[in-house]
Amino acid sequence: MNIDSVDFYYASMPEVTLEADGSQDALLVRVTADGHEGWGECEASPLTSIAAFITPRSHGVCQPVAASVIGERLDGPDDIHRIARLVARNSMDLLQAGHTWSGIEIALWDLLGKVRDEPVWRLLGYTENHAKLPYASMLMGDTPQETLDRARLARTNGFRAVKFGWGSYGTGTAAADADHVAAAREGLGDDAQLLIDAGQIWGDDVDAAIARLEALENAHATWLEEPFVPHAYVAHAALASRARTVGVAGGEGAHTVHMATNLIDYGGVRFIQVDAARIGGIGPSKAVADHAVRHGTTYVNHTFTSHLALSASLQPFAGLADHRICEYPVEPKPVALAISSNHILPDANGEVRAPEAPGLGIEVDLIGLLPYLRHVEISIDHERVYTSPEVPNKVSHVV
Amino acid sequence: MNIDSVDFYYASMPEVTLEADGSQDALLVRVTADGHEGWGECEASPLTSIAAFITPRSHGVCQPVAASVIGERLDGPDDIHRIARLVARNSMDLLQAGHTWSGIEIALWDLLGKVRDEPVWRLLGYTENHAKLPYASMLMGDTPQETLDRARLARTNGFRAVKFGWGSYGTGTAAADADHVAAAREGLGDDAQLLIDAGQIWGDDVDAAIARLEALENAHATWLEEPFVPHAYVAHAALASRARTVGVAGGEGAHTVHMATNLIDYGGVRFIQVDAARIGGIGPSKAVADHAVRHGTTYVNHTFTSHLALSASLQPFAGLADHRICEYPVEPKPVALAISSNHILPDANGEVRAPEAPGLGIEVDLIGLLPYLRHVEISIDHERVYTSPEVPNKVSHVV
Repeated sequence: MNIDSVDFYYASMPEVTLEADGSQDALLVRVTADGHEGWGECEASPLTSIAAFITPRSHGVCQPVAASVIGERLDGPDDIHRIARLVARNSMDLLQAGHTWSGIEIALWDLLGKVRDEPVWRLLGYTENHAKLPYASMLMGDTPQETLDRARLARTNGFRAVKFGWGSYGTGTAAADADHVAAAREGLGDDAQLLIDAGQIWGDDVDAAIARLEALENAHATWLEEPFVPHAYVAHAALASRARTVGVAGGEGAHTVHMATNLIDYGGVRFIQVDAARIGGIGPSKAVADHAVRHGTTYVNHTFTSHLALSASLQPFAGLADHRICEYPVEPKPVALAISSNHILPDANGEVRAPEAPGLGIEVDLIGLLPYLRHVEISIDHERVYTSPEVPNKVSHVV
Repeated sequence: MNIDSVDFYYASMPEVTLEADGSQDALLVRVTADGHEGWGECEASPLTSIAAFITPRSHGVCQPVAASVIGERLDGPDDIHRIARLVARNSMDLLQAGHTWSGIEIALWDLLGKVRDEPVWRLLGYTENHAKLPYASMLMGDTPQETLDRARLARTNGFRAVKFGWGSYGTGTAAADADHVAAAREGLGDDAQLLIDAGQIWGDDVDAAIARLEALENAHATWLEEPFVPHAYVAHAALASRARTVGVAGGEGAHTVHMATNLIDYGGVRFIQVDAARIGGIGPSKAVADHAVRHGTTYVNHTFTSHLALSASLQPFAGLADHRICEYPVEPKPVALAISSNHILPDANGEVRAPEAPGLGIEVDLIGLLPYLRHVEISIDHERVYTSPEVPNKVSHVV
């Protein structure tokens, strides 16, 4: 097969707020090759990612992503890895390229899986598809009582692992944060996993993070996520060396494999959290998972958006029985749910797993997405260089 | 003062080739505050960087760069650092933001220097402005004889340090590369510094790089630049531990301070090469220079474009007498020279230094740039969200 087309569908809520909720918009990618179709998603700024695909070249290693993709051979996984190397080389100086490529790469796996009638996790070499324990991500409450109430609600809703973060966490005193963490534990009871997400709030201030450790360990928190900015390995390592029972977690900011493996090799994280829709897709995510297995680090997906992104993020560690916990979008915005007509739902045990269907096993629903689609046009010197794709005919007829 | 406006001027050669020559286009940034003006430059994909400035927000930490800049107070260097933290926070998930912000940050220093009637290097705390030895960057020849001829020409043109790279280097056999390196040394004679640039050609393949070491050391090369991709610290360290006389160099790909300091802390580089127009501007570059001084690493600018970018890249290490060598754009494309009416020229000793004039000391020449300017328009849902700025009246009249 040859890659014939790459189309971007930019969807968003009518109003996008300042919430730390990444499900408010989406950039879907459709790739076609010899009549076959695959879908992926970039967890990234839609307009900027589109620009990185079609921008005029700046020089030989600052080329648009399109230059390395359109027309390329696609006969198997090796071709995906080969095209990934092309993009990395030809778009070396185009920072956004990694985010743009991520959605395309995911679509290539989906396409290849459909052609071969295999789920992507089998194409990756896994022979089993293990159930994962989904955790619910929630905002820390405005008051400890609110945090406690939310924790209770999450238990009522059946979650055995819950993550709290953002909101006020890390911005006030360590004592105030300790109250929230204790409230979260109280609300969850003793038998649920408690995860805390600092959302990079301390930059690279190790002391600020260390000041929170005691409360986290008293509450038996499983991990402290993203205490620092993603490249601050020295800070991560300093914190990890002081932590006893709580593990340091991070990785969602990684846009290359090395950024994630460095967090393991130098940062001492116990949990490496990878967003396939940012790191360059499923292939790079699997490479990080392999590295994690070799180093005794637990792999966890990062997913806050659609079930297409969720499926993509589950594939790289579907076959790893011991890497049990998985991030699950609990309250995504309607646009994120509208992306697909099917969803990955918890089973009777409250567990989820990657689909068994070919490719990513997710049916993209352009009809459902129509109310959210946004139309982009870009001109240079009054010549149109980009127009959003028309929605396919069969969909248009429905409107 | 308050920041009133940020304007982008996208300029390019009529034809942009696949050469590894970053001077074929440019993204200039003009910032105004209370009637004052400053200029900066992004060493980045122009269209993509503009998109990152104006894109609709995706969520609270994936905001356009504009959201953290327009209307902000600007009374001194602390404000620049403060706005940098705002951008890092609010655009955490917008990968291109670092490149966009770099040009704005540089313009803020230029503006502040003009208001205070001080060169930027004084605002950074330096009391002296030391001369640097410029090195010429050249493509490796197609044959060793061509490389030898180019080396001789560079000496004839007065350069006492010359860098060869890209072209065929690293893509064929180690023996072929050795012939080129020996030819370069022969052409330069014994008393010039020879620098070799591998342009990330080996990815993270340490053995491929080690296979070139002997030839480099026989030719007394000062450094081997960018043997690997920027995040491959493990590979850099492995190579550094095997090198004796030749130093490992790198850093131009850094888009955060930590990316550069990690190359020092973990990668064992002896030369840290920073492009102010990519790493987030002059403030982050100075932070890397401080780190380099503390760790006995040599700071070098990376500059392949205009003299505005050159001035910006010289400021962060202007006061460091022992960090002597500097990258100097030897054969930039006409668009890069057209950006300014004045240029940083070698003195009688063949040395260059940062301007003594206020700000960056570079006069941007929109008249000269007119033939190269490109007009960008971006619409979302048929509403114009971006139009390139009109060229100021006084310039238009001249045309």
